[in-house]
Amino acid sequence: MLEKLKEDVYKANMLLVKYGLVLFTWGNASGIDRERGLIVIKPSGVPYNKLTPEDMVVVGLDGNKIEGALAPSVDTPTHVHLYKNFSSIGGIVHTHSPWATVWAQAGRAIPPYGTTHADFASGAIPCTRGLSKPQVKTDYELNTGRLITQYFQDNGISPQAIPGVLVFSHGPFTWGANCYQAVEHAVILEQIAMMAKNTETLANVAPIEPYLLDKHYTRKHGNHAAYGQKR
Amino acid sequence: MLEKLKEDVYKANMLLVKYGLVLFTWGNASGIDRERGLIVIKPSGVPYNKLTPEDMVVVGLDGNKIEGALAPSVDTPTHVHLYKNFSSIGGIVHTHSPWATVWAQAGRAIPPYGTTHADFASGAIPCTRGLSKPQVKTDYELNTGRLITQYFQDNGISPQAIPGVLVFSHGPFTWGANCYQAVEHAVILEQIAMMAKNTETLANVAPIEPYLLDKHYTRKHGNHAAYGQKR
Amino acid sequence: MLEKLKEDVYKANMLLVKYGLVLFTWGNASGIDRERGLIVIKPSGVPYNKLTPEDMVVVGLDGNKIEGALAPSVDTPTHVHLYKNFSSIGGIVHTHSPWATVWAQAGRAIPPYGTTHADFASGAIPCTRGLSKPQVKTDYELNTGRLITQYFQDNGISPQAIPGVLVFSHGPFTWGANCYQAVEHAVILEQIAMMAKNTETLANVAPIEPYLLDKHYTRKHGNHAAYGQKR
Amino acid sequence: MLEKLKEDVYKANMLLVKYGLVLFTWGNASGIDRERGLIVIKPSGVPYNKLTPEDMVVVGLDGNKIEGALAPSVDTPTHVHLYKNFSSIGGIVHTHSPWATVWAQAGRAIPPYGTTHADFASGAIPCTRGLSKPQVKTDYELNTGRLITQYFQDNGISPQAIPGVLVFSHGPFTWGANCYQAVEHAVILEQIAMMAKNTETLANVAPIEPYLLDKHYTRKHGNHAAYGQKR
Repeated sequence: MLEKLKEDVYKANMLLVKYGLVLFTWGNASGIDRERGLIVIKPSGVPYNKLTPEDMVVVGLDGNKIEGALAPSVDTPTHVHLYKNFSSIGGIVHTHSPWATVWAQAGRAIPPYGTTHADFASGAIPCTRGLSKPQVKTDYELNTGRLITQYFQDNGISPQAIPGVLVFSHGPFTWGANCYQAVEHAVILEQIAMMAKNTETLANVAPIEPYLLDKHYTRKHGNHAAYGQKR
Repeated sequence: MLEKLKEDVYKANMLLVKYGLVLFTWGNASGIDRERGLIVIKPSGVPYNKLTPEDMVVVGLDGNKIEGALAPSVDTPTHVHLYKNFSSIGGIVHTHSPWATVWAQAGRAIPPYGTTHADFASGAIPCTRGLSKPQVKTDYELNTGRLITQYFQDNGISPQAIPGVLVFSHGPFTWGANCYQAVEHAVILEQIAMMAKNTETLANVAPIEPYLLDKHYTRKHGNHAAYGQKR
Repeated sequence: MLEKLKEDVYKANMLLVKYGLVLFTWGNASGIDRERGLIVIKPSGVPYNKLTPEDMVVVGLDGNKIEGALAPSVDTPTHVHLYKNFSSIGGIVHTHSPWATVWAQAGRAIPPYGTTHADFASGAIPCTRGLSKPQVKTDYELNTGRLITQYFQDNGISPQAIPGVLVFSHGPFTWGANCYQAVEHAVILEQIAMMAKNTETLANVAPIEPYLLDKHYTRKHGNHAAYGQKR
Repeated sequence: MLEKLKEDVYKANMLLVKYGLVLFTWGNASGIDRERGLIVIKPSGVPYNKLTPEDMVVVGLDGNKIEGALAPSVDTPTHVHLYKNFSSIGGIVHTHSPWATVWAQAGRAIPPYGTTHADFASGAIPCTRGLSKPQVKTDYELNTGRLITQYFQDNGISPQAIPGVLVFSHGPFTWGANCYQAVEHAVILEQIAMMAKNTETLANVAPIEPYLLDKHYTRKHGNHAAYGQKR
């Protein structure tokens, strides 16, 4: 069942290791089959060097396990909630990659300081507020997902335009059209997080001009994108 | 004698190289056989690329060598003292890994700024005070051990809940259920040290909420842990 | 057509990956055949691990494609403009390498703080001003080239003496006698950018003495260079 | 002639690449045969991946080339001067390794902030003052050597106790009993430079207690060293 998606999600998880975003059993990547409403996700606490495509776990949009010998990632309720609320996304990645986590721990959104950021996202990468004690105590992982989607809704942000978020005191989640793009976004987020931090210590600088941000974002994204090859 | 433990301790030492925590002959990992009261530790000053499992040295809980052609690590008295006073631990690692050493040199405990820290330890990673001149002159390595255990005792800290320490002006010691977990904790400590330092330069931020710290710590540790696979 | 130059430009692009200056499809290297007035450049948006020498695109000095199945880099108009105005250069590299980009995002020239810089360039690596909204809206990539050459002309800077520039809010461009030297300069620029940033946080230091800058620059460049082997 | 020393010096130079201390043709390692009064050094400006043991150049203590098809490193007069004035040393390494160079560019000695430093050197790693315009114009490389030895003499510092120096606005030189130890010292200097810089940004901390510095230094060096294996 879902052999191709399992293979893809497995490979996406292994790419997290290749790109140096995870240690030991940390992090997780998932993907969704929108037609069937089924999500494939990494099992909980299995070291990457022992992972196989068959270990991937299938869960439904109600969060219940459909198939798999292992328990799914403890972060599964966050993934499920994001898939249900961000209808355009096909893959999700969660890591504790160091520079992005530094911003999450500092409780700060990453301002768009350059075109590298603008090639990736149409504005700042937001950082959520913290969860209350009751929100942590009960349904913590689900509430993490709610925190994210609420933030995007309240601020009128599109998950397509801003393909990631920092969860306060925790770390980044990124998403994309599929699990591979979600990985790519996790790598880019780590890079812009490192650059934004060091930009601030070099100069008291304002974010990039909105018209330059827009130019770069639309050069790479949307119907008028000039970047890449016509397909 | 203790062939399996020697092999494990050898492999744990080699993992320190793999994870980039040591240079040349620096650092050391050890493990204990609690039933026999015997400790296996790296020999002193042997480069990692020349190390073999047979080079591992066996010492008793009195610190005397029981078996081995080579002299044990000069830090052996510290290890022995920790094993004698922290009855739950099965392995110890000492490194001068850069970011953890930076905090040790600065004489500062690492505050828990995020869930990466909380997944690892139930509170700040303490930094000891300095040793006095007499404590350095005589029984220096033993006194380093005493400094650590005294700190944990005085502050009512459990070595299971806080699996590592920074020795002021020196560097980190970590421990765990066995030598492999002690290595894992050394890697994680290095990562949270890097992130905590950069978090502080990004924002004047308070440590993570206690209820979030507790949630993450208990999600991964203890009888109610939800993380990982049931065994 | 231009098989040797295509091979060289292909290899130069792959070196950007080897030296860790680019991610995914980012960055581009080009070279020019001055006799024929033809430029060879990386195609747009093709991942490096799928790139072949045959994928390289040939464009004329009017910016039009002469040969190649794929669309050239979106930054082609910048490259073409630089080749037309900097007659001594034979290769150009553009990256978003992290430390150089940090200076570009901060809008600051990199001061020559040491002989590593002086071995590479005869003075500060300039950072351009920003483009206006109309300059971004129309002919953005060409205007980026104009911004660079205008800066060098207005300030009487020779592109041979200063083999690179930071484009404000964007990132570095470097050049050289050929595409390989342009890559080498991109690597060196990244290194001096990292060192200059950290030098400033260690001490409030003035740039290197002009006579020491001159000594090192002329030791490696020009007719009286003592460095290297006579040919 | 001096086949063994050429092989050693070649290998020492290649180790600079392995340890990430040099780029392209940067840096150089040398060794001396004290009995014959002959120095073997890297040729000038040859990329490391094209270097062979036969390329090593033999020079006398007057600085003149004795053997070799290639011109020796432009820094040869510095090496020769150090060998003539520091009679205990058998090998020298010069690099522009980033963190050590940052301190050299900042014009600051590296304070001994921890035992990692104390295991390596008995006090701060000094930074020279700058050379005057005439000293740079004529005999620049020789004057760099003079600047170093004068500093050690004026301050009563032993080159055995302090196995390296930072040349202001330039970078580090390290030395040791032979060329391999000089490389090891270059690696360690880079590590303590990184840690000292970050220690300062974490806390306003004083150098390590002199008695702890002395303990660690003498634990590893001299007749009473306890570290390592008896030979």
